[in-house]
Amino acid sequence: MTLTRQDAVALDAADPLAGFRSAVVIDDPDLIYLDGNSLGRLPSASLHVADHVVREEWGRGLVRSWQDWIDRPQQVGDLLAMHLLGAASGEVLICDSTTVNLYKLLAAVLDERPGRRVIVTDDDNFPTDRYVVQGLAAQRSLELRVIRADPVHGLSMRAIVEAVRDDVAVAAFSHVAYRSGALLDMAAVNAVAAGQGVRVVWDVAHSVGAVPVHLHDDGAELAVGCTYKYVNAGPGSPAFLYVRSDLQDRLRSPIWGWFGQRAQFEMAECYDPEPAVTRFGAGTPSVLGLALVAAGVRSLADVGIEALRAKSVALTSLVVDLADDWLAPLGFTVVTPRDPARRGGHVALAHRDAWPICRTLVEQRAVIPDFRAPDIVRVAPVPLYTRFVDVWDGLDRLRDLVASHAHVLAGTPSPPRVT
Amino acid sequence: MTLTRQDAVALDAADPLAGFRSAVVIDDPDLIYLDGNSLGRLPSASLHVADHVVREEWGRGLVRSWQDWIDRPQQVGDLLAMHLLGAASGEVLICDSTTVNLYKLLAAVLDERPGRRVIVTDDDNFPTDRYVVQGLAAQRSLELRVIRADPVHGLSMRAIVEAVRDDVAVAAFSHVAYRSGALLDMAAVNAVAAGQGVRVVWDVAHSVGAVPVHLHDDGAELAVGCTYKYVNAGPGSPAFLYVRSDLQDRLRSPIWGWFGQRAQFEMAECYDPEPAVTRFGAGTPSVLGLALVAAGVRSLADVGIEALRAKSVALTSLVVDLADDWLAPLGFTVVTPRDPARRGGHVALAHRDAWPICRTLVEQRAVIPDFRAPDIVRVAPVPLYTRFVDVWDGLDRLRDLVASHAHVLAGTPSPPRVT
Repeated sequence: MTLTRQDAVALDAADPLAGFRSAVVIDDPDLIYLDGNSLGRLPSASLHVADHVVREEWGRGLVRSWQDWIDRPQQVGDLLAMHLLGAASGEVLICDSTTVNLYKLLAAVLDERPGRRVIVTDDDNFPTDRYVVQGLAAQRSLELRVIRADPVHGLSMRAIVEAVRDDVAVAAFSHVAYRSGALLDMAAVNAVAAGQGVRVVWDVAHSVGAVPVHLHDDGAELAVGCTYKYVNAGPGSPAFLYVRSDLQDRLRSPIWGWFGQRAQFEMAECYDPEPAVTRFGAGTPSVLGLALVAAGVRSLADVGIEALRAKSVALTSLVVDLADDWLAPLGFTVVTPRDPARRGGHVALAHRDAWPICRTLVEQRAVIPDFRAPDIVRVAPVPLYTRFVDVWDGLDRLRDLVASHAHVLAGTPSPPRVT
Repeated sequence: MTLTRQDAVALDAADPLAGFRSAVVIDDPDLIYLDGNSLGRLPSASLHVADHVVREEWGRGLVRSWQDWIDRPQQVGDLLAMHLLGAASGEVLICDSTTVNLYKLLAAVLDERPGRRVIVTDDDNFPTDRYVVQGLAAQRSLELRVIRADPVHGLSMRAIVEAVRDDVAVAAFSHVAYRSGALLDMAAVNAVAAGQGVRVVWDVAHSVGAVPVHLHDDGAELAVGCTYKYVNAGPGSPAFLYVRSDLQDRLRSPIWGWFGQRAQFEMAECYDPEPAVTRFGAGTPSVLGLALVAAGVRSLADVGIEALRAKSVALTSLVVDLADDWLAPLGFTVVTPRDPARRGGHVALAHRDAWPICRTLVEQRAVIPDFRAPDIVRVAPVPLYTRFVDVWDGLDRLRDLVASHAHVLAGTPSPPRVT
């Protein structure tokens, strides 16, 4: 029996996290935002943080503020490490973009082990991850071994065991698949890799802030990720990288920049990288971006990642249930693992009209999901600010839209350019 | 005869640019800020810009705003190209840091011409530039040919002709030297390089916004630079890169990222870079940073770079004159070219007590210069917001400080960590 709207309202009334919704700015109560896995909402505190950094720290403090700013990439990294990544102090640095960080860490491992001539990734990895891997393989004449992922369940351990052999230098995997939402067993994959002497660089962009990430406990050596999704740090906010402490003096960034240099402001003649995670820094970091990352992490730390995950599982389960009841008859298929333990914070629904459905849903029904080519509607009920009734209403509006053929009547939308 | 304070006040009264001082926030009228070449002041418009991007574009527009944001890296690049770089539309991209951009362009040229085994730079180039070059030379087993620069006058054309021979793949030079302020003749260097088939990557970080840069007219093929100095875009704001249009499809970034991908949101299997400057993009750009770069460029465009340069020359000439009269007897030496046509926007003064002098000047006299190891006080009278009387007062306070030995009496400051 399907949950009624009253049931959803009751779930919200009983939700211990309900009060945290005010941690973000919501100024259009009718809008149902289900795309926080693409761009998280604005934390209420961030308005003040941005104004303070611009007006006081930059405008008034001027260059003197660098005394405080200089340590922020590692300080904010520590905050992220402690609250969301299960890593230790001194292992996480906020810098650059996920793309650049992935390039740095993969290249560092390739430089460390020139004898191994294979890189492994999978065909469902996030585009920029696949492109970075392709580039490194091409530039260094390495074999690129691409695992075929199941479109719903992602990578099987059998396929990983087959691919990750002792000729592999490094593997690049996403913790949560960007399309299906499938959650990879990080500990199991690391165990396989360790057995073959293979390093893995994890992309946790789609899990950080949604799923508890236990880098240390799960044996992860290297990771990267972004902060503009569940961490709510704003569009194009700085990314992060994690290098386990025992590896820091064995690996070297390919980009020898002054923010990785020991005693940076001595401006010595020769590059001599810091014996710390800061060696993976390159250029001057975005100070405003760092402050917004800190604010984003704090907005989640106040709740706690375990509580967020529990609510996330309840919300995505509701999406799956409603999709089965309401949307399957309309041509939708759930293409995300049904076992909550095997998925991240979003649910993917396949439909051949996914693109016109997404456009019309945004334009006519004030529901924002997102579209992933060629046929997927992604629905992310972010637990910090999404209510059960939002899921109910959002899927109800989706059902009504498709049942009434409004997406067809609206005409063919222009092809997606940004999604 | 030295200019009197009254003379300086009169110069300000006659200054056609005096009204533009309100383009930046100045809330401590006693503070004399001579370090805008390290971190530029906050443009008044940027307060509103930052608030608008955070509150409206991100907070209210949410992911829908990407429709507008997606083209900003190139749009803001066009703005910079037109007003400050002497480049054409479609040749400048705002992205990453200067360090990462330099790495990308140098690596792209090295990949293009594997037969040439030498990289050229100079020993007075900015630290991060030298480190990036050292890294690429080490990783690719190339010869690194380092030109010895004159500490005052920078690189001689003779030294450049000697070093830039037909075995060189690429040379990395700064347009304005970060210490001495010496301005290199871009057109002459490019002519020498072109004669030997050598590409030059210019770092214009210390000239953009202070000196008219004519990339096209001066025959420049490639350039990078930052926006947090004279462009006033804020601490760690995004950097830029310039690739002349005819080279864009011949060069490839070593970092194959999704923001360089053709039809990015089709998320195709294989990397296929845009046939445009956007191919040098990598990860998701900082949206807030981009807006602040645009605001910074506009604050200068309203005045015009030629008018800014004219005032800058007058201001740095005043620094030199006062230094000769007041500071030379106290042990200072002007280590910047005396010919205004051969220097950028700052003047370097050498003194063996430079570090305690800088610290005490900031702490006791409300004058902010900056320090460059081991013995240089840099003075940058940024024309947008520095008055002639500021230069007069600033150097007067410096004179009084050193003459009274206040910097010695203050005790030895802790060694510089951030300068």
